[in-house]
Amino acid sequence: MNYRIDNLQYCNWSREIFEINKDAGLNAVHVTIVYHEDYNEFLKNLKEWDKLLNENSDIIFLGKNYKDIDKAKSENKTAIFFGFQNCSPIEDNIQLVEKVHEHGCRFMQLTYNNQSLLATGCYEKNDSGVTNFGREVIKEMNRVGIVIDMSHSAEKSTLDAIDISQKPIAITHANPYFWHSAKRNKSKKLLKILSENEGMLGLSLYPHHLKNNSECKLESFCEMVARTVEIMGIKNLGIGSDLCLNQPNSVVEWMRNGTWTKEKKYGEGSKDKPGFPRQPEWFLDARGFKNLDSGLRKFGFKEEEINDILGNNWYNFYKGIN
Amino acid sequence: MNYRIDNLQYCNWSREIFEINKDAGLNAVHVTIVYHEDYNEFLKNLKEWDKLLNENSDIIFLGKNYKDIDKAKSENKTAIFFGFQNCSPIEDNIQLVEKVHEHGCRFMQLTYNNQSLLATGCYEKNDSGVTNFGREVIKEMNRVGIVIDMSHSAEKSTLDAIDISQKPIAITHANPYFWHSAKRNKSKKLLKILSENEGMLGLSLYPHHLKNNSECKLESFCEMVARTVEIMGIKNLGIGSDLCLNQPNSVVEWMRNGTWTKEKKYGEGSKDKPGFPRQPEWFLDARGFKNLDSGLRKFGFKEEEINDILGNNWYNFYKGIN
Repeated sequence: MNYRIDNLQYCNWSREIFEINKDAGLNAVHVTIVYHEDYNEFLKNLKEWDKLLNENSDIIFLGKNYKDIDKAKSENKTAIFFGFQNCSPIEDNIQLVEKVHEHGCRFMQLTYNNQSLLATGCYEKNDSGVTNFGREVIKEMNRVGIVIDMSHSAEKSTLDAIDISQKPIAITHANPYFWHSAKRNKSKKLLKILSENEGMLGLSLYPHHLKNNSECKLESFCEMVARTVEIMGIKNLGIGSDLCLNQPNSVVEWMRNGTWTKEKKYGEGSKDKPGFPRQPEWFLDARGFKNLDSGLRKFGFKEEEINDILGNNWYNFYKGIN
Repeated sequence: MNYRIDNLQYCNWSREIFEINKDAGLNAVHVTIVYHEDYNEFLKNLKEWDKLLNENSDIIFLGKNYKDIDKAKSENKTAIFFGFQNCSPIEDNIQLVEKVHEHGCRFMQLTYNNQSLLATGCYEKNDSGVTNFGREVIKEMNRVGIVIDMSHSAEKSTLDAIDISQKPIAITHANPYFWHSAKRNKSKKLLKILSENEGMLGLSLYPHHLKNNSECKLESFCEMVARTVEIMGIKNLGIGSDLCLNQPNSVVEWMRNGTWTKEKKYGEGSKDKPGFPRQPEWFLDARGFKNLDSGLRKFGFKEEEINDILGNNWYNFYKGIN
C-alpha cells in the first residue's frame, strides 16, 4: 500500500483547498492550528476547525492515529492531523499536555523562532538547549503521544530533544543547510543524528527554505533529496510542504511578530519583501506532489523510494506515535 | 532624612504583619504579589490587595514613586510597592508591560528559577542570556518605569540585563556567593559590575541564603556586609529580607513547583527539609532591622553608612525609577 502525506500545511482553509489536497491524492495532512495562541485561544481555533470538519465531512475528517490514514485512503478522503508551531497552548502547565492531546494535537513544536519556556528557537543569538520545564514536557508528550517537532528550534535544543525523548522526534518542515543556508534549515550533523534516532525530516517547499527561493528548479530540489538521502538514508525523509495557500500577508506579519515586539520584525523576509513569497511553479499547491514524483523518477529514484519519500515514511512514523 | 526600607517581603499578609513593619520603622516595603500568575490571575491578586490596602489604610498605602516614601515617613505609615518574582503576568505580550505598571507594578524579575520567555533562571543547566523578547521587554520596562530585578536569574542573563537596560537594575534579595555558596547567591564579578552600573543589591535574610542557614550569627552577617562593601562600595547595598511570615509550607511548594512539573522539586530545600526554614533569632521579622542597626554599629560601621544600608540607598534608587 502506498500513501501520500503532506506533513505540514498552514493554509487559509476552505473547501477549495481540501479539494486540491484530495485531487493531489493526499491521504493525510498535518495542519498547523496554533502559532502564538494560549490554551483558550486554541480552544477557539478548535471551534473553527469543528465547523470546517463538519462542512467538509465528505472529503476530510480528523485523524487520531495511523489507522485513520488507512481509513482516509479507503474512503478517498484526507485525514487531518492537528499540530502546533509553538508550545504556547500548554502555557506553563504540564497538565495541559494531556488536554491538548485529548483535543487532537499530535505534533507540537517546542519553540517557534524565539525562546520558549521549553527550548530555544533558531532566531535567538544563544541556545541553552531544552529547559527544566522542557524536560518534563517531553516526558509527558512521549507518554500521551504528541510528536516533538523541532522545525523552528536551534541546534543544541534539537540535539537535546533527540537525546531526551524516548520516542523519535520530527522536523516536520525544513531543508538541509548545505543546500540553502537559511536560518531555518538544518546542519548535516543534526540530520545524521536525527535519522540515527529514527527521527523524520519533512522537506519544505516554502521558498525561503529553497535554493534560489521562488526560482528554485525541480531538478535542484531532487538533487538535494538525493544528497540528503546520502546523509539520512531513504527511510527518514518525507514532505512537509509548509504551504500557506491564500493567506493574506497580515498573517505572516503576525507569525513573525506575534505580540512580543513593538518594532516590526521581518523574519525570513525583509523590509522590501515583507509578505509571503511566491511558490515555485512546480509546487503551487499540493498537486505539485505529482511533479515531485516525476522529478524524482527522472533523477533516478526507484518507485519504492519515491513512495517512501512522498508518504510511506510518514505513515510508518505515525505508527510509532502511540 | 533617614529611611528604613525592606525591599522584598512575601508574607501571608495580615494587619499583624503591617503593624510589625510599622513598629520596625519601615517607611517602604516592596512586596511580591506574583510568582507564577498570568495576567488575569494577577488582576485577582490585585483585588485582594485592594482589600488589604482599604482595611489597613491607617498604616499602609500603595506607593507609586519615591515621594510616597517621604509621605509614608511623615504620616507614620508604610508605603507598599508592588513587584513580581516572575514575568508570567506579561505573558507573551509587550503591551502588558505598560498595563502592569498602570496597576502599580514597580519591580519585575525577568525570571524566577527556571527559563522564562525573557531570560534564564539560576536553576537551569545552561544560560543563554536575555532573549529576543527579553530585549524588547527591558526597553519597555525602562520606558514605563519598572525596575528589572534579577534576583533569581542566572549570571549571563543578569550581565546581559545590566548591559541592555538603560537604567540601573536591582537584585532585590540575594547575598554574595563568597559568603554562602547557594545557587541563588551572586558572584563577586557580578556584584562588582552591578555596582559599577549603579545597580542595587538587597541583602537577604532568608536562611537558605545565609551562612549556616537558620543558625547564622548576626556578627557573620555584618562581616559579610563589610566584605560586600569592599566589592560594591557603600551606596549600592540595601536590605531585601525575603521574609515569608506566616506562609504555610504549601506556599513554598507552589513557589518551587508551580504547574511545570509532575514530580515534586525541592528547590533550595530538600526531601528531608521541604518547608520554609526557620528565621535566625536576630531576624524573626522586620523588627530585626534594629538588630542589624546595632550589629553593624558594633562591627564598626558609621551612622551614615548604616542608614545608607538600611534604607537611604534604596530611597535614592527609587528616585531614579521614573
